[in-house]
Amino acid sequence: MSISMYSASVPVFTRMLGHLLQWLDKAEAHAQAKKFDTSVYLAARLAPDMLPFTKQIQIACDAAKFGVARLAGVESPKFDDNETSLADLRERIRKTVDFISSVPAAAIDGSEEKDIVVPRRDGNIVLKGEFYLKHYVQPNFYFHVTTAYGLLRHNGVGLGKGDFLGALS
Amino acid sequence: MSISMYSASVPVFTRMLGHLLQWLDKAEAHAQAKKFDTSVYLAARLAPDMLPFTKQIQIACDAAKFGVARLAGVESPKFDDNETSLADLRERIRKTVDFISSVPAAAIDGSEEKDIVVPRRDGNIVLKGEFYLKHYVQPNFYFHVTTAYGLLRHNGVGLGKGDFLGALS
Repeated sequence: MSISMYSASVPVFTRMLGHLLQWLDKAEAHAQAKKFDTSVYLAARLAPDMLPFTKQIQIACDAAKFGVARLAGVESPKFDDNETSLADLRERIRKTVDFISSVPAAAIDGSEEKDIVVPRRDGNIVLKGEFYLKHYVQPNFYFHVTTAYGLLRHNGVGLGKGDFLGALS
Repeated sequence: MSISMYSASVPVFTRMLGHLLQWLDKAEAHAQAKKFDTSVYLAARLAPDMLPFTKQIQIACDAAKFGVARLAGVESPKFDDNETSLADLRERIRKTVDFISSVPAAAIDGSEEKDIVVPRRDGNIVLKGEFYLKHYVQPNFYFHVTTAYGLLRHNGVGLGKGDFLGALS
């Protein structure tokens, strides 16, 4: 018995992306209560040279999408990075969940030693599937999801650890 | 072939805690360059009702410490949460790495179906080992590590994604 590559990827990302959708609901309710436009969130940054909220969501989705596609060796759907509203971001998250949920477990299981080609700014690198998932995709995914959470908290949205971790029973 | 419970826990936490130590070095250099005391970082928060930097580090360490100890069924060392400097926080991180590195792989492997008792504010919950690691310990650990990173970035420390992910070859 041990953790399968599938169970360490798709269900982990699907679960957190579901939580992210719920944070967006709370963000929308907060904006309504405070009477500001939800588009204010989209440009929010924690530092002037960090990526804004919209990009954090896009990259969190892409971390999951490309991670799953590369492990499975399937083509990933192309998303245009043209979201301009919370509704658009919700749609991006849903499309991501739809795609990764469509990949069969059998396509991902057994990819531990598979060579994964990862495009980087300074050229391609090749990582083994298990290293790629544990030390690249997962931390990258959590980085952008957590930064999105931090941006909402920084802008007054009432989220707590329970919203981050989700249901535990 | 598949991912072992050990390989999905100890090396993942050890690696990221090593990166965290490097961020603290950059934070110290930034404070020196800008001539402010490094203690300024310790109270930094992303929102008034979020935990400060010191707590983010303490909880990141505890997520790793308790996660590994509970999966292995061993006692975890007690840390006093009395850090008041970057040097103290470094020591906390090092003690955490020392402890989790001391737990043998054999004590953690095979804990997928083990009942893990997790103390929560509203009472104990019981989670299976694999669920506990993937949906509680890992997201909680990454949450606090990423929030610490975000706080340093928010306070001007020059970190990038390469510092977060670390060496990839």
